[in-house]
Amino acid sequence: MSYFRKNIEKMEGYSPGEQPREQEYIKLNTNENPYPPSPKVLKAIGAETGVSIRLYPSPMADPLRKKAAKVYGVKENNILAGNGSDDLLSMLVRSFVGKGDLVVLPTPTYTLYDTLVNIQEGKLLKIPLTRDFDIPEGFAEREAALTFLANPNSPSGTFTPVKRISGFLKEMGGVLVVDEAYVDFAEESAIPLIRQYPNLVVLRTFSKSFSMAGMRIGLAFADHDLIDGMAKVKDSYNLNRLSISAATAALEDISWMKNNVERIKGTRDVLNTSLTQLGFKVHLSQGNFILAKIPDRNLRGMYEELKRRGILVRYFDTPDLQDCIRITVGTDDEISRLLEELSDIRKGEDRWKGIKTRG
Amino acid sequence: MSYFRKNIEKMEGYSPGEQPREQEYIKLNTNENPYPPSPKVLKAIGAETGVSIRLYPSPMADPLRKKAAKVYGVKENNILAGNGSDDLLSMLVRSFVGKGDLVVLPTPTYTLYDTLVNIQEGKLLKIPLTRDFDIPEGFAEREAALTFLANPNSPSGTFTPVKRISGFLKEMGGVLVVDEAYVDFAEESAIPLIRQYPNLVVLRTFSKSFSMAGMRIGLAFADHDLIDGMAKVKDSYNLNRLSISAATAALEDISWMKNNVERIKGTRDVLNTSLTQLGFKVHLSQGNFILAKIPDRNLRGMYEELKRRGILVRYFDTPDLQDCIRITVGTDDEISRLLEELSDIRKGEDRWKGIKTRG
Repeated sequence: MSYFRKNIEKMEGYSPGEQPREQEYIKLNTNENPYPPSPKVLKAIGAETGVSIRLYPSPMADPLRKKAAKVYGVKENNILAGNGSDDLLSMLVRSFVGKGDLVVLPTPTYTLYDTLVNIQEGKLLKIPLTRDFDIPEGFAEREAALTFLANPNSPSGTFTPVKRISGFLKEMGGVLVVDEAYVDFAEESAIPLIRQYPNLVVLRTFSKSFSMAGMRIGLAFADHDLIDGMAKVKDSYNLNRLSISAATAALEDISWMKNNVERIKGTRDVLNTSLTQLGFKVHLSQGNFILAKIPDRNLRGMYEELKRRGILVRYFDTPDLQDCIRITVGTDDEISRLLEELSDIRKGEDRWKGIKTRG
Repeated sequence: MSYFRKNIEKMEGYSPGEQPREQEYIKLNTNENPYPPSPKVLKAIGAETGVSIRLYPSPMADPLRKKAAKVYGVKENNILAGNGSDDLLSMLVRSFVGKGDLVVLPTPTYTLYDTLVNIQEGKLLKIPLTRDFDIPEGFAEREAALTFLANPNSPSGTFTPVKRISGFLKEMGGVLVVDEAYVDFAEESAIPLIRQYPNLVVLRTFSKSFSMAGMRIGLAFADHDLIDGMAKVKDSYNLNRLSISAATAALEDISWMKNNVERIKGTRDVLNTSLTQLGFKVHLSQGNFILAKIPDRNLRGMYEELKRRGILVRYFDTPDLQDCIRITVGTDDEISRLLEELSDIRKGEDRWKGIKTRG
């Protein structure tokens, strides 16, 4: 017998990417930033390690909201802070999705959306992206209680222009979540649209561009009515003191983040060109990662060979992504090393192909 | 129109106690520890503030689980770490309570249970405690999917012996959550029972005895089947790197915590006696707080007067608790100051009563 709800009993949990403890790998599998966070972040954490740790943090992470309002040009009551954007995603699904309510998401995308909707017993409508990983016509479903759009999308790195998002919002009857986890590596943000659309939530994370995946910080931007309602399902003290201080400090040194982003975009260009030269089909990415494909070939072997050689990339064992690997843009050195190994692996394949042909 | 689920739209969120930013109050309202955490905790946080912050934390907080298994005499797979025990409570309700499922809780108790069940549209059965805040006969409901028991209970501070809990478990068909947030200030824990009962979850927090409310750390102890299932609804990286390190360090210096607990228990005795002398009805507390009552008198005025005098205590505006204030056991100095002010307030009341009588 099981004590669990039937849907929980049946479901698989979400599988995060590998987080090896040993740290001996070149880690290009979970889209972390290869550069450290601002020294101001480290200083802010150091300053908090006094006795204040014995006291509860600000329930709404007020210092962070205040600073973020200035940086992003919105009001404090347009912002909700989360223990990572995963925490905010969970609040969103619990706020808007009851049993049987329709939830639309494109596929492939961040698989956590799927998991969260299953926990809530929502009804999923998965809309396949086009062959170029674009959002197809007819994506905006009037009947959906909630629609997810990662922008840039992961794992494809593709970007939907904000003007098109505005078009979706006009057609939608429910809430649209634009998950901008990677937007600092892209060209434009949907945050300004929250003034116009009461059904838009834009999510940000400090795990990618701000180099703070280990701190768990996310922000939601929306009309204050949505923020107020979502706060009802929030854990009372969902961010700890150190995360609040660290995130506030990161926003006070935003040029540090922007410099890192520029370096990563430079490396992304190199990686993009080199992968093409190595015979991969590469989708132009606006994230800090690249999805590289060899059409109709299962790349599990390549992922495993890279791992043997000390490099972790992400392989997704699903029918639509088996011919791809997703590579996080690391430092120049890390990417050089990856490209050397990939080149070597590809040469070995050619030799093997030659043998096979001769045989 | 509202985009929210109807139950979310209707509900009030949980109200945490006041967390004034100014820190100028003597803060006896949210059961924080007046003493600082172990210096080893502060050192562990300092040691983590390197570049590792850019990397995701261990999804299951493995270093913490490993240490906690040793300290509490269980296996690692009997433990799930949470972003505070609130995070674990949320996982529990989402794991075991579907729409309409029965949830039993005593009243008064920690009001967050109530909020979480409403989010999940469970069916609440609230069983009033006896006049002495004991659990009444018939508390164990075979039909309940989930039953909550805070032990010691808040706000009453009363304790249910573990032997009695064992009796409940034999009668229950669903899961029992024993929330031991305050158990380090009490006499015995229900953790050893998890070997015997596959439907028992015991919760612990680092916010009280360990002086780490600002870090958000909780632990759940249960049979590994329950832990595995609950992990499915867990956010992938629910504890940040600093919290994992800090909690692990706290467990490595458990005598620091125990010393603080002994000091607090000493002060609790003084507070208990003095409140009685001041005419309060006081329930013997096994927590780091005392519920003080003046039967049938609304103590809102007393709470407000204390606040004017720079002391925050907790007042609950509900029919069953309006004649009480809950006082956190602070330092000896803080409690002396509180008692002086209370004594002065009580004298003023007597004078006023005298005038009134003469009038």
